Parts: sequence; structure tokens; C-alpha cells
Amino acid sequence: MPVPVRRPIGILGGMGPEATVLLMQKLIQAVPAQDDADHVPLLVDQNPQVPSRILHLIEGTGEDPGPTLAAMAARLERAGAQAIAMPCNTAHHYALAIRSAVAVPFIDMVAEAVARARTLADGSGRVGLLASPAVRRIALFEPAFEAAGLVPVYLEADEALLSVIRRVKAEGPTAAARAGLAEASASLAERGASVQMIACTEFSLLSDAMAPGVRSFDAMDCLVEAIVAFALLKEPARDMREARA
Amino acid sequence: MPVPVRRPIGILGGMGPEATVLLMQKLIQAVPAQDDADHVPLLVDQNPQVPSRILHLIEGTGEDPGPTLAAMAARLERAGAQAIAMPCNTAHHYALAIRSAVAVPFIDMVAEAVARARTLADGSGRVGLLASPAVRRIALFEPAFEAAGLVPVYLEADEALLSVIRRVKAEGPTAAARAGLAEASASLAERGASVQMIACTEFSLLSDAMAPGVRSFDAMDCLVEAIVAFALLKEPARDMREARA
Repeated sequence: MPVPVRRPIGILGGMGPEATVLLMQKLIQAVPAQDDADHVPLLVDQNPQVPSRILHLIEGTGEDPGPTLAAMAARLERAGAQAIAMPCNTAHHYALAIRSAVAVPFIDMVAEAVARARTLADGSGRVGLLASPAVRRIALFEPAFEAAGLVPVYLEADEALLSVIRRVKAEGPTAAARAGLAEASASLAERGASVQMIACTEFSLLSDAMAPGVRSFDAMDCLVEAIVAFALLKEPARDMREARA
Repeated sequence: MPVPVRRPIGILGGMGPEATVLLMQKLIQAVPAQDDADHVPLLVDQNPQVPSRILHLIEGTGEDPGPTLAAMAARLERAGAQAIAMPCNTAHHYALAIRSAVAVPFIDMVAEAVARARTLADGSGRVGLLASPAVRRIALFEPAFEAAGLVPVYLEADEALLSVIRRVKAEGPTAAARAGLAEASASLAERGASVQMIACTEFSLLSDAMAPGVRSFDAMDCLVEAIVAFALLKEPARDMREARA
């Protein structure tokens, strides 16, 4: 039996470590397998010591994580990764530093998620974002949303979401964290967001907590599909598609 | 707040991919954490395309996985790993090739598990092994058991365990796989093994299936403790302890 052809993917991980493990689990579940060899090969840098995105972007006191992420990506490329992916929405703020450090494509979770949002949005184009307050402050999704004719909807008071993120990083996906996300999802629905995107990989660990009646999806699941498609040679990464377009 | 000092560990993974994910989960749970940075940094080569240990050791038809594992270990060392570990018992058959390829210590799951077995064994010294038939054929645990004054107990007919392993690799930890392991554990207890070691990381995914009344432990948990101790600078890996002894 020949070994199936798979392209290895480099994962910039550890932000947080549980989200990286969840991505790996989802990648296993996403591939129909008869034996180990069917699965996607990964080179995972599970680096929980990447400088804090919260300290850098929200509190303005921390070291820039960009150079660390760029160095990790370059190291993964040297080790044989044929594309780079990163299961952390907020850290996509540093995507330019990462892209600049490697010749292989960066599979962009933000681009993949906005492409999905476009297929789900209703006529209003309003899509709720359950994300770190940092994501709103740096307007991470705004350019892609605008290009897609979509309108991002945030919570009025999103500090509560930061405390949910901190809770998950310290205690894991507890019932209290779940309740915090459920409340945020209900508030977004009241603000007219009947379609909602989970745009924080800490919230991916709580995805069963979304408010009833909401059409929700998880940016991480969009990343999983893109990784599988690239690794199994089904289609080029969005980066490459755009480069050719 | 200073970033805590952690030594990165290289993981030879993908054998199977789910077992590697389980190891990573256990490592997260094993470290008391207030934030991401408290966790153990890992460089994980999740390589499901390592040549099959079953084909090489049992069916005698496959390629030798040793050179692949040695090359993976060397690559992880070059990327910054300060020790190497491997969440696959059977693949410890190739430990010599791995040790020869790197200057950093190899955290040996077999050595760690036998040390634990010695603390748990009763006067008979009999310890049941729930392992791949390959592990029995290559006598992977025998030298360490003998040195520890322990007697390994295997199933008379262990082909059933191979089918459980294949089932987990294809379908995940199903109820049928769980029932297969429960039956094997009960048979070992009938053969006088009141202490039993889970010595296959596919079975680690089914560890709640052990027969009642048996004192069981999982070799992977011994590996987790050794990795945490090394990464958090609490003690040198067994390799280093032995080198100094």
C-alpha cells in the first residue's frame, strides 16, 4: 500500500496551548483515515512563551510578538513545512511579519473565516464577532469585512470577553467561562447579529455555549478546512490563489 | 511579570496522531498555570507517515522506521529541543537510533514506566502488559523488567489487541475498542496480574476500560511526569541521571 501524499503544515502554536491541541484534534477528525498515514503531517511549535498579545495590544506594556512569530515560522519552513498556519485570531495582527519571514504560503484564518461569513450572512450583512477586545481595537477583520460587503458587530462592553479568555487560559473551558460566552452571544443577537463568528480560539473550546437561534461558525473550523485542502493537495492556500488572481 | 523558565521538548509524534494529541493534553493538565507562559514549550513533529511499526516488526514486510525517527529527532534538536520524547511504546524499539542521532537526552518512556511498575508491584513481581503484540515479540520491556526484578505477564492470545489498535487508528476510541481492551485486562487479571501497565498509546485513549479491581497505570502518564520535571528544571531526564550514576 503506497503512503498517501501529504504536504506538511507548520503550526505557530501555544496561543494558547489548548487551542493548538483543539486544532490538531479537529484536523484528525477532518480526515477520513484507515491508518495513521492518511492523516495530515504537522510541524507544531507549541510555544506558550510567545510574548503576550494582550499585553502588547491592549495594555501597551509588552514586547512585540511579531519577531518571535516570524522566527518560529522561518524555523518551521526550514524544518520542511510547506505552508504555515496559526490557530490564534488575535495573532493574525502580526501576519505581515510572518509572511515576510517565509517563502511558503501563510494559510490566513481571517481570510478563510470572512469567506465563510460571506456565504452565511443575511441581507443586512451584519455578522457578530466573538473576539478578544484586541481584535476590535486593531480592526483585524475590518478590511476583509469591507471588501466582502459585510458589517462587523461587536459587543458594546467587551471587557467581559477578555475575562472569559483569561479564565480559559488559567482554568480551561469551565462552566463559568461557558456562561460568559453564552451571555455575550445573546447580547450580540440582541444587537441584530443573527450570524455570529467565533473569532478567538479560546472561545473555540466553548463553542457549544452559543445563544440558541444564532447561526454561528468558528473561524478555526474554516482554518481546518483550508489546511486539509492544502495538505491533501486539493487546492492551493488562499494566499496562492490570491497571488495568481 | 518575568516569563517562567521552561526547556522545550521535542516530540516524535504521529504514532498515532491521536496519542500525540493526548500527550499534549496531559502536559497541559499537568502544569498548574495562570497564563499561557506557564506551560511546557514543545516542538512536535506530528508525522503520521513514519513507516509502520506493525509492518516492520510483526508482518516483516515494511521499511525500517529507525532512520526516519533518527532524522526527525535530529531536526527537532536543531530546532531547539533540549530533550526528545516519543509517545509510542512500540517505537521505543528504535530508541538506539534516536539516541545516536542527537546530543540531547531522550526521555525514555519504557524506563520511566518500569520505574513506576517497581513501586506498584506486589510480592509476586508480576505486572501485566497491555501492549501491541510487537512489544512482546521484540521483548521491549524484558531487560528493564529483569533489572527491576519484575515479571511481565502477557495475554496468551494477543492478536485481539492488535485488532483493537487497528480499530483505534481507523475509528478512534470507540465503544467496541473499549470493550476489546476491557476483555484483555480481565484476562490478564485471571493470569494473576493484579498490577497492569497500559503500554500502548492507542490504549491510553481507552484507559477507563481497565478491569475492576486491577491497579493499573499508563506508561504515557509516567512520560508526562518525566517531561514536566525536565521542562520545569526540576530534575534531569533519566538518561542524564544514568549517565552520571
